Amino acid sequence: MSLEAPTVQVVRRAAKHLRGVLRSTPLLESDALNARTGGRIFLKAECLQRCGSFKVRGAYALLAERTPEERRRGVVAWSSGNHGLGVAYAARRLAMRATLVMPKDAPAIKVRMASELGADIVFYDRRYDNREEIGKTLADEGGAIIAPSYDHPHIIAGQGTVALEIIEEMEAMGASPDTVLVCCGGGGLAAGVALALSDQMRKPDLVTVEPAGFDDMARSLAAGRRVRNDVMTGSICDSLLAPEPGAITFPILSAYGASGVAVSDEEVRAAMRFAFLELKMVLEPGGAVSLAAALFGKVPLKGKTAALTLTGGNVDQTLFRRVLESGPPDSP
Amino acid sequence: MSLEAPTVQVVRRAAKHLRGVLRSTPLLESDALNARTGGRIFLKAECLQRCGSFKVRGAYALLAERTPEERRRGVVAWSSGNHGLGVAYAARRLAMRATLVMPKDAPAIKVRMASELGADIVFYDRRYDNREEIGKTLADEGGAIIAPSYDHPHIIAGQGTVALEIIEEMEAMGASPDTVLVCCGGGGLAAGVALALSDQMRKPDLVTVEPAGFDDMARSLAAGRRVRNDVMTGSICDSLLAPEPGAITFPILSAYGASGVAVSDEEVRAAMRFAFLELKMVLEPGGAVSLAAALFGKVPLKGKTAALTLTGGNVDQTLFRRVLESGPPDSP
Repeated sequence: MSLEAPTVQVVRRAAKHLRGVLRSTPLLESDALNARTGGRIFLKAECLQRCGSFKVRGAYALLAERTPEERRRGVVAWSSGNHGLGVAYAARRLAMRATLVMPKDAPAIKVRMASELGADIVFYDRRYDNREEIGKTLADEGGAIIAPSYDHPHIIAGQGTVALEIIEEMEAMGASPDTVLVCCGGGGLAAGVALALSDQMRKPDLVTVEPAGFDDMARSLAAGRRVRNDVMTGSICDSLLAPEPGAITFPILSAYGASGVAVSDEEVRAAMRFAFLELKMVLEPGGAVSLAAALFGKVPLKGKTAALTLTGGNVDQTLFRRVLESGPPDSP
Repeated sequence: MSLEAPTVQVVRRAAKHLRGVLRSTPLLESDALNARTGGRIFLKAECLQRCGSFKVRGAYALLAERTPEERRRGVVAWSSGNHGLGVAYAARRLAMRATLVMPKDAPAIKVRMASELGADIVFYDRRYDNREEIGKTLADEGGAIIAPSYDHPHIIAGQGTVALEIIEEMEAMGASPDTVLVCCGGGGLAAGVALALSDQMRKPDLVTVEPAGFDDMARSLAAGRRVRNDVMTGSICDSLLAPEPGAITFPILSAYGASGVAVSDEEVRAAMRFAFLELKMVLEPGGAVSLAAALFGKVPLKGKTAALTLTGGNVDQTLFRRVLESGPPDSP
């Protein structure tokens, strides 16, 4: 099947698919964050999205684009969690069967949620197994749709609806962003945001934020070609450990003129504590990297108006407790 | 000074004062909560309000009603925390001095926040001191405005703006509540909600939710007269430990025909875990009692449309960690 070229029009079509199914999540401001950065920062709270992350947007957009005939054959996805949850939710809404290939060490909360959504789960070992092979074999058997976690025009378009909402909500408040910070794994969300922003009169700076050591997108954007990460494990940000930028996502971000920064696990933990104390929101590590970048001055925000994504909140109780313990009591 | 009679018109005027100063907080739904209750439940996320609770609404409405001359003499309040924070915030926005009388055992986060907002803090001992005396003496000295924590028409009207927003947002979604559950201490929020709902074509059932052992409002509404709590300490819900219903709040709730229920500390902890896992929001114990009432079937919600308040999120890290530890891992 040849793929449709991803454009802002495809993002707008995705927004139509999502209407009434998913949430237009709130865009919030924090006095504490504004004071700390010296800018005016809008926070897109996708942790309050259905299934606890933005991922359900792309999953639903992808499946909504297929024919009823195709949907009858089910969907297969491989994912450390949030994409899988999104696929499971979207499949249930469209009365489809979903099979998820998940790593054995996926956060317990994500496994439980996927199972509650009625998905069949096949586990693999991150160190030895090739999840893509497992998934493709499963899909081939029944002719199921494969839902890639980021490198697909309709997935990218679905995630990009986040930025349409940001722009619309900011316009309603008489504001427009100078800078947009986006949490980045394989680049599905970031590329979708780039598409959605591409026809703005005044194009904001777009900055991808990744975990330190997994900043393949930042290095690729700097190098002008896709480069890989050296390792596959070792960050607290389980949801952002893609091996390299996508073949479709990277050119979109490169063409937009995006750049990338990275944050340490320690900065991510501090951002999670900040979200707890100041925002009253629960963020998973991968959902807190943009906030960490703002808090720790990775991007100049003084005097700027910016928007950033709080992309997910599916974090285990045990990890969250450890993060709270790792900081000084009652201050981030 | 004679007090204005609290009416729905005063609530509407309060909403005008608050516009552009405070947040119209999001009204959220949770698939998990809908499934568990069998109803359609809308959650008013006041934990995302400025200063982390609804209390700033009443405080700002009260001070905005006074003359610039009166405001120049500052404001005094006594509060275990959230009301004090609201007063401190409102005072800062109106360029006033604020003095807070706070218990020595107030949650550390609330003391820190009040101090960061520039308030002067005077500590007292819950067991031995009369905070009202301390506060009145301080106010008399400089002719300052006294900001009662609930029993004042303008405080009540300010809190009632929560319900105006609930009704408006639900109408936009084509829904209207059969039942409204409100977290209740002295009854300021509950009475304000009653006023705001009083001119609805179809008046919803209004239910106050209190901590077990501190259900003075529930017992007063049942008895038709104000009765006191036997004790003043011993609940996890630090923000809901008023000794008795207010002289102004009680008649409003009684005239509306409200009733009350109570929840145990264990049920409150489970609700806080539910908010963490399913809503991705941080609730303080007192802010979680309405959710606890819905989760544990204190009010029949099957087949009903309901709204409830998540009233605050100012909880210490240590207490929050203990609450997470007190439940089974990763399920509420």
